[in-house]
Amino acid sequence: MEKRFALGIDYGTASVRALLLDFLEGVEVASSVFYYPHGVEGVLEDESNPLVARQHPEDYIHGFYQSVQDVLNQGKRSGCDPAAVIGLGVDATGSTPIPVDSQGTPLAMTDRYANNLNAMAWLWKDHSSFAEAGEITDRIRESKLPYLSKCGGSYSSEWFWSKILHCLRTDPETGAAAATWVELSDFIPAFITGRTRPEQLVRNACAAGHKAMYNSSWGGLPAREFLTTLDPRMAILSDSFSKPQTASEIAGLLSPEAAFRSRLPQGIPVATGAIDAHLGAVGAGIAPGALVKIIGTSTCDMMVHPLNDPLPDIPGLCGAAEESILPGMLGLEAGQSAVGDLFNWFVRQFGEGNDPELVHRRYTDQASELLPGETGLLALDWNNGNRTILIDPLLSGLLLGTTLQTRPCEIYRALIEATAFGALRIIEQLEHYGVPVNQVIACGGIAAKNPLLMQIYADVCNRPMIVSRSTQSCALGAAIYGAFVGGAFSTLDEAREKLVPKPNQIYKPNAEHVATYKRVGSLWRQLHDAFGIPGTTSDLSYMMKELIALRDAQRVRNSTL
Amino acid sequence: MEKRFALGIDYGTASVRALLLDFLEGVEVASSVFYYPHGVEGVLEDESNPLVARQHPEDYIHGFYQSVQDVLNQGKRSGCDPAAVIGLGVDATGSTPIPVDSQGTPLAMTDRYANNLNAMAWLWKDHSSFAEAGEITDRIRESKLPYLSKCGGSYSSEWFWSKILHCLRTDPETGAAAATWVELSDFIPAFITGRTRPEQLVRNACAAGHKAMYNSSWGGLPAREFLTTLDPRMAILSDSFSKPQTASEIAGLLSPEAAFRSRLPQGIPVATGAIDAHLGAVGAGIAPGALVKIIGTSTCDMMVHPLNDPLPDIPGLCGAAEESILPGMLGLEAGQSAVGDLFNWFVRQFGEGNDPELVHRRYTDQASELLPGETGLLALDWNNGNRTILIDPLLSGLLLGTTLQTRPCEIYRALIEATAFGALRIIEQLEHYGVPVNQVIACGGIAAKNPLLMQIYADVCNRPMIVSRSTQSCALGAAIYGAFVGGAFSTLDEAREKLVPKPNQIYKPNAEHVATYKRVGSLWRQLHDAFGIPGTTSDLSYMMKELIALRDAQRVRNSTL
Repeated sequence: MEKRFALGIDYGTASVRALLLDFLEGVEVASSVFYYPHGVEGVLEDESNPLVARQHPEDYIHGFYQSVQDVLNQGKRSGCDPAAVIGLGVDATGSTPIPVDSQGTPLAMTDRYANNLNAMAWLWKDHSSFAEAGEITDRIRESKLPYLSKCGGSYSSEWFWSKILHCLRTDPETGAAAATWVELSDFIPAFITGRTRPEQLVRNACAAGHKAMYNSSWGGLPAREFLTTLDPRMAILSDSFSKPQTASEIAGLLSPEAAFRSRLPQGIPVATGAIDAHLGAVGAGIAPGALVKIIGTSTCDMMVHPLNDPLPDIPGLCGAAEESILPGMLGLEAGQSAVGDLFNWFVRQFGEGNDPELVHRRYTDQASELLPGETGLLALDWNNGNRTILIDPLLSGLLLGTTLQTRPCEIYRALIEATAFGALRIIEQLEHYGVPVNQVIACGGIAAKNPLLMQIYADVCNRPMIVSRSTQSCALGAAIYGAFVGGAFSTLDEAREKLVPKPNQIYKPNAEHVATYKRVGSLWRQLHDAFGIPGTTSDLSYMMKELIALRDAQRVRNSTL
Repeated sequence: MEKRFALGIDYGTASVRALLLDFLEGVEVASSVFYYPHGVEGVLEDESNPLVARQHPEDYIHGFYQSVQDVLNQGKRSGCDPAAVIGLGVDATGSTPIPVDSQGTPLAMTDRYANNLNAMAWLWKDHSSFAEAGEITDRIRESKLPYLSKCGGSYSSEWFWSKILHCLRTDPETGAAAATWVELSDFIPAFITGRTRPEQLVRNACAAGHKAMYNSSWGGLPAREFLTTLDPRMAILSDSFSKPQTASEIAGLLSPEAAFRSRLPQGIPVATGAIDAHLGAVGAGIAPGALVKIIGTSTCDMMVHPLNDPLPDIPGLCGAAEESILPGMLGLEAGQSAVGDLFNWFVRQFGEGNDPELVHRRYTDQASELLPGETGLLALDWNNGNRTILIDPLLSGLLLGTTLQTRPCEIYRALIEATAFGALRIIEQLEHYGVPVNQVIACGGIAAKNPLLMQIYADVCNRPMIVSRSTQSCALGAAIYGAFVGGAFSTLDEAREKLVPKPNQIYKPNAEHVATYKRVGSLWRQLHDAFGIPGTTSDLSYMMKELIALRDAQRVRNSTL
């Protein structure tokens, strides 16, 4: 049988990656990364405002052609004929909206706005619109409208409408020049299919649902009248917003120009876009009952649940959006504000200038010698606030149980455990509201590199922790959709079954550790509620004694092992 | 006028110091230190039991002669004629009891027991009798006897009866050979006056009251019947216990032999002994209303209160003993379990092997740049349990308010503040029960070397912090009593007025800092009670937000200074 291929294009924060997938063999043939040349690691900054983070749309376009050409060249050496590519999928960071003119050309790429930061792409981590986010949140709450019920009760400065409103407020000329605003995850499919004009634009369900308050229960976007109260132009923009599509639907066919410049076959189907993490979940093997956890500086936790089995709103979740991950499924999103960041903070601040990698390794090796409970410590991982379940940035870290003998490696272990208890808290919330979590699939560098952390997570959560085998699961998820819209499989399930790599590493809970962590976890939960939930009153005076008793018992236990 | 002198002899844990005082000029003429030659830094250890800490009585005797001869030789160069020494005083660590035979000779100095660790002096920090301390505590509590009401509710393994009982239980032969047990602070005056036989022994009120449960309200020592229930020999020993004397009373006159060997004048008065810290308080200038705080690895806080103005028992204090510091005054003792130890722990564990002195200095310099509240942190200093007010070793340290930006110097400052709040808590307890605390006199290396800590203490406690000028205040206190019993002054007050050096360094509270620390202090107090007092229930959920708000305000404030 002749080889055939699909492409996945994954736009990250500093670079874009193209992945060439042999979908008949289920093999990742080649991949290529292109780093955005503009700005600082791809980010355009504003000296007068550290909250600003923009990107130049040219980098996206240039990056598409460069990474695709490169991956096809690599592929040729492995016997891949570019003509055998049958489809492609795209994911991107988000919310990263780009103001475009009536032809769909990014304003930044027109002479008039070429040097205007507000005409660039507004990167997800641009927080300059915090005041507008607050205003949107307040207006919705005051009006008792339901729009925040699917996104954790607050609208974020990272999201679509906050950014647009900030532009309208602070740079009305640029605001007025924008015929509409397009998410990066929609811009790329539009651009390479030549369907960039506002009335042609395909919007993706993932960004629409998670970032723009799109939900069928209130008829799509927030009502025109509501948007008008913020700014009349917001209502006009919403008119260009057609019903979103899922990534399993075709956004369009590759245009002659994009085919010529990329050397891909003209007219192959391009899948509708999605946000990177969500296609990462697909690449990692998300399915009902399996939580995908991307463990990086922070974590992003994702699940799917059949739309035909309606759920109540789950308090404290960051987001619930229809078909944002898989068609026919509700996509659920949660997260922890500091995970890798928390360990890095500790190592950098207390490592006295030593190589952070070596300090991480030393602490990890020493902490691995300990049993659960043996540190006598208990920590809350709120050094960057709490995203899920408390959704409160005005919380901070806590460490309990230090003695004059406490060593840094013990605190390091306590910090890992704190994030594990936070992870369990999310799982418990999901299950309490009807979403069973039978296993956890972990992606990201920490998952692959830190067996101590993975075992602690398995023991604390009392569930198998599966390490996703793909190191580029976002691009893989995009390629899976590319293969599907290219017609390689009759059902998406079939595509996923074939193309998601089986994990080769599973951390199983250790029954003895599970039992110990149940004890510690009940203390953690009480501490969590006491400091995190207003109005909680409880007696915490037994806590230090309990931790000391457990520590002493575990030291004896460890010395006999 | 001809010069005249007094001597103060101060027995510490590793060495003995002799101080030659020109009491007419109020000048410390010379001092000499002798390090105990036996054991490890003067301590005899037991390889099979790390709790054992003994000392050889020979070192005390040898140390007396060596240090006195040396200080007199030094003094000659400054024009001091040994014949012009009119009296001497002695203080020593305690409780450090020594088993002696019927002649008052330490068993360790008899052939039969020369190599028996149990026949040595049992140093205060010997904790081998922890089981007996628990038994004594339990028996007193069960019998509802009042004996623990003056020493914080628990009898310690550091104290007199625990050690004797442990010897009787574990080495009955040595126990039976002891005609009585003598505190080091009584042994030296007895030895140099030649009054060592049990029936001649003078017991000092300080060691008797603070370590042996001697109190006039129950007629002296614990009742014979009670001691008999522990061990009949304990009751027999108590028979040799005459009514204790204060340090302002003469223990005896220098014997011909001691005079000959020391080159001091024969027959000069020797003051009754006392425990080192208590005479240190005298040397530092203790008086009603002035708390003397010896800040070292831990702290010892001392106050005096007129016996003719009776006080209730003060819950949580470590000790209250009649005339233990000054005649006619109740001596009160409190303490914090970890102060210098807490800062050293942090520096050693997180300094990554760098020179601790340099790390201390760096953290101190950086922390000095901050305003109160600016760290956003709040700590409990219980890494070694809590001595006063909670008297609970099963407590541990807590740190609240960390972020991903928290620096080690900020934690260092929070730890200093935690000990300051602990110090304030003791002051508040004293005042609540009728002992006004108008000023604090700080002694010890940290007080002299760390202006940041002293200013924080002044601001947190809202009281002037006076740094004692004498660096050898224990020996000075002993010399003051030596001068007094030698007849140099008609009243002790006159002696103290003349001989306690006026401080040259006073830290005054800064009104703005005081106001800020009142806010932080009320949070600290709530945290202290929530984790330290069983049955406390409170709502702590506002705490992190309050700390963040204060931090942000103080950062702005600091940037405008």
